[in-house]
Amino acid sequence: MSEFVHGHLLSKRALARKSSHFAAIDKSPPKGFKPADKNLILSWGTPNDGFFPIESIDLQLVDYPFEKSLSMSMTNASLESLALSKTNGTVANDSLGPKKITINRRSEDEKLIDIAHGLQYSEPKGHPQILQFTREFISKIHPPKYSDWDTIVTTGASDGLNKVADALLDPGDVILIEEFTFTPFLAHVANTGGIPVPVRMNLDPTPDKSNGLDIDYLTDLLENWETKKPDLKKPKALYSIPTGQNPTGLTQSLEFRKKVYALAEKHDFIIIEDDPYGYLTLPPYLKPEGVLKLDLFLTVEEYLSNHLVPSYLTLDTTGRVVRIETFSKLFAPGLRVGFVVGHKKVTEVIAQYAAVVTRAPSGLSQMVLNNVIEQKYKGVYGWLQWILKMRLTYTHRRDVLVNAIEELDAYKKNYVSIIDPRAGMFLSLVVNFPPGTPIIEKIRLLNWKLLAFGVHAVPGINMATDSEFSKETANFFRLTVAAANTDEELIAAGTQLAKAVTEFFENGLEF
Amino acid sequence: MSEFVHGHLLSKRALARKSSHFAAIDKSPPKGFKPADKNLILSWGTPNDGFFPIESIDLQLVDYPFEKSLSMSMTNASLESLALSKTNGTVANDSLGPKKITINRRSEDEKLIDIAHGLQYSEPKGHPQILQFTREFISKIHPPKYSDWDTIVTTGASDGLNKVADALLDPGDVILIEEFTFTPFLAHVANTGGIPVPVRMNLDPTPDKSNGLDIDYLTDLLENWETKKPDLKKPKALYSIPTGQNPTGLTQSLEFRKKVYALAEKHDFIIIEDDPYGYLTLPPYLKPEGVLKLDLFLTVEEYLSNHLVPSYLTLDTTGRVVRIETFSKLFAPGLRVGFVVGHKKVTEVIAQYAAVVTRAPSGLSQMVLNNVIEQKYKGVYGWLQWILKMRLTYTHRRDVLVNAIEELDAYKKNYVSIIDPRAGMFLSLVVNFPPGTPIIEKIRLLNWKLLAFGVHAVPGINMATDSEFSKETANFFRLTVAAANTDEELIAAGTQLAKAVTEFFENGLEF
Repeated sequence: MSEFVHGHLLSKRALARKSSHFAAIDKSPPKGFKPADKNLILSWGTPNDGFFPIESIDLQLVDYPFEKSLSMSMTNASLESLALSKTNGTVANDSLGPKKITINRRSEDEKLIDIAHGLQYSEPKGHPQILQFTREFISKIHPPKYSDWDTIVTTGASDGLNKVADALLDPGDVILIEEFTFTPFLAHVANTGGIPVPVRMNLDPTPDKSNGLDIDYLTDLLENWETKKPDLKKPKALYSIPTGQNPTGLTQSLEFRKKVYALAEKHDFIIIEDDPYGYLTLPPYLKPEGVLKLDLFLTVEEYLSNHLVPSYLTLDTTGRVVRIETFSKLFAPGLRVGFVVGHKKVTEVIAQYAAVVTRAPSGLSQMVLNNVIEQKYKGVYGWLQWILKMRLTYTHRRDVLVNAIEELDAYKKNYVSIIDPRAGMFLSLVVNFPPGTPIIEKIRLLNWKLLAFGVHAVPGINMATDSEFSKETANFFRLTVAAANTDEELIAAGTQLAKAVTEFFENGLEF
Repeated sequence: MSEFVHGHLLSKRALARKSSHFAAIDKSPPKGFKPADKNLILSWGTPNDGFFPIESIDLQLVDYPFEKSLSMSMTNASLESLALSKTNGTVANDSLGPKKITINRRSEDEKLIDIAHGLQYSEPKGHPQILQFTREFISKIHPPKYSDWDTIVTTGASDGLNKVADALLDPGDVILIEEFTFTPFLAHVANTGGIPVPVRMNLDPTPDKSNGLDIDYLTDLLENWETKKPDLKKPKALYSIPTGQNPTGLTQSLEFRKKVYALAEKHDFIIIEDDPYGYLTLPPYLKPEGVLKLDLFLTVEEYLSNHLVPSYLTLDTTGRVVRIETFSKLFAPGLRVGFVVGHKKVTEVIAQYAAVVTRAPSGLSQMVLNNVIEQKYKGVYGWLQWILKMRLTYTHRRDVLVNAIEELDAYKKNYVSIIDPRAGMFLSLVVNFPPGTPIIEKIRLLNWKLLAFGVHAVPGINMATDSEFSKETANFFRLTVAAANTDEELIAAGTQLAKAVTEFFENGLEF
């Protein structure tokens, strides 16, 4: 392994952690010692797999999201018709993989995890097969510019976030965070004794105008750190969700990422890139038609060339970027499986945390995930095809919701604007309060109005890194299309939402 | 909930932890607010289950451990013949449950977890169905003497141990630990800043003579704490593995537990009871015959009345006991599912940790475990029948290994003794060194001799809480019968082990 030049940005806590298992063998044998030809294991407390009550597992799989509820949604009927009609091979039926796969107690296929291994104790860093898949995936989609990177499997993104915070932050260390963010990460920061410092965002709803982070603010903050934050150390890291940002839905362009990366180099901090749903790229909003348009359905090649913004990893020459992924949104949250990508020194430090605190993620989850990807999707390419189907369904849902809102008075009268997302499952409904409005008070009151109309949204202020810092900028709600059962529900939600806003504005911003 | 009188023994860190989700609804609505009749969810980022690629899961199950490898082992042939011949209902074939169970996307059966829920995000404390099973299980097997207890699901016992250490220990807090223990727990203690203090054990190999912990030592230590440990606070907790102790295999009798509990009341500490394999009770060693003896196969009633030592929970009137269980040894380690039992205040504090650090255990694992228990074993009683089959297999394995050792010179010449365990998967091979032998040096050298003979065992010193404290008492190896594939392997291991010991002794304790 080449030197890791950012070792000084790792936490003392993480670097001090050492694990050694009581059943491991010492490394210094006496003179004359020769290992035996046959080893008889009375040491490890691993139950023989003959004790496991499961002999085999059959998984019945779908070819499309919502395949079994076709009658409920035009989305899926469209997907099926696409698959049947488009004949360039991308979604032809012969590439759909088997409807059923079987996991046996023993398998000779090295790409598969069998029950004897999947239900056994495993290495804290994850099973070799899924580590190999994640490496291949990153090599193809977001290859770093250096070779000594690796992946480590985590118990979902939360576990990844917690372990990355632990790996970097000692008490008093500073981390920059977008002013609106996935706030559970703040708890992980608090656990380390780290100090979060919010960075201003730009919530301009003009299409593709904003990259989320306010780069001028960030540059000024870093250039004048000693005067602006005299009591704080210079930041060790920036935590960002650069694609389909949570909660705003904004996405940083590649050019923008280059600027941020240059700042990271100049001011010597790590970029923590959290990307739970960035693969769900979204084209600009289009008024939905009865069926999906054929040209919305991308080939893998089109998707990678023109739609997916490359990760910060692809700019990284030294291991300055740590990326956190999850299978929660693309496969299922209940797996609790994600992974972290970073310099080998970083993944090693995280593996130590896993060894002495959490142990390995569920082997059953790793086995099911790995074997579905290998047997149904046949690896990276087929997995991307599944992601493209997810993407199209999310695109349609986004279009249905935005259309429902834009057709109503609240939008036409400019009470609200929408930030149309280029990726992910969130979009911002910006509330255009008159100047001087006490934003937090009124956004909370408006939230009750939405609830009275049956609409559950997330006030942006609930996701502020520092609510005092963002008291003037939190004039928005996060909306997501992920949970709805049908298009009709999304239309009803958009309609009720717009009605609630209109009534609130026309009642002088009172409930 | 009645008052939790041991609140002062919880850590400040744990008590200070508060979680609130950004998508949760405020509790104080404005005047005039009425909830809507129909709710439309644009708030939670939970993907609709229509996005999950798995439609259903079939699990093929075995009726006996090693059922599919009958030809390899006399153990299982015996189990099958028992099942066919014993007709009192306990193991009759009609109580074996289905060979195959199916998990569907949706189920109306409230005892089952369906795919729509199992693969979704879940409460950090676990799915309601498995919480209900664990409560029923504890109510039947180890009922506490107070009502305000609860269970919480964890990602295996390790996660439970880590969360319990966090719940109790602040920096500088003292915890008593058996001098030989499951040392990974020491890393959890270290994470909290807690201080482990070893308690002497009694490794007398006379059958049923020792309870493990040296109660005289413990009593003296507590009665004279201020003079013996002048620099340390009085202990907040005792961590013990009271049944089939790891590594020694020793089990505390019920009478002994009453004495320890009385000490806990007098000196005001919590008892952390770790019990990963105590359900595998073992009768006294018997020379194995070709087939298992019918009378070794217990009914559930016999097992509960006369074989299983009741948990410390059954003595607990106030919530002084926290018990940690796991499904790793009874179902499979790869599930990473266990649970903690304690006062509701304790499980609530642990739930807060889960909410802000780890999140929920794998939902897939919980679903598979819960549904196998409900559909194959039909709940607590049938699950105990499965445990009895595991128990019989472990009994047989223990007998095979002990017999192999006892037939050879090393045992006959009293170079070694065996602590015959009453529960669990471990037994101690005590090495009878002559007085004055430098124990650590010679046990490490003997370990290389074992390895040269192909036998992997764990030197007791590797599992010492404090190796300096135990330098005179660590004259033993931990052996386990869990991993072996066949009886023949166990026989070979016992034989090689005994040969290595003999050669070592007859070479003047040199390699």
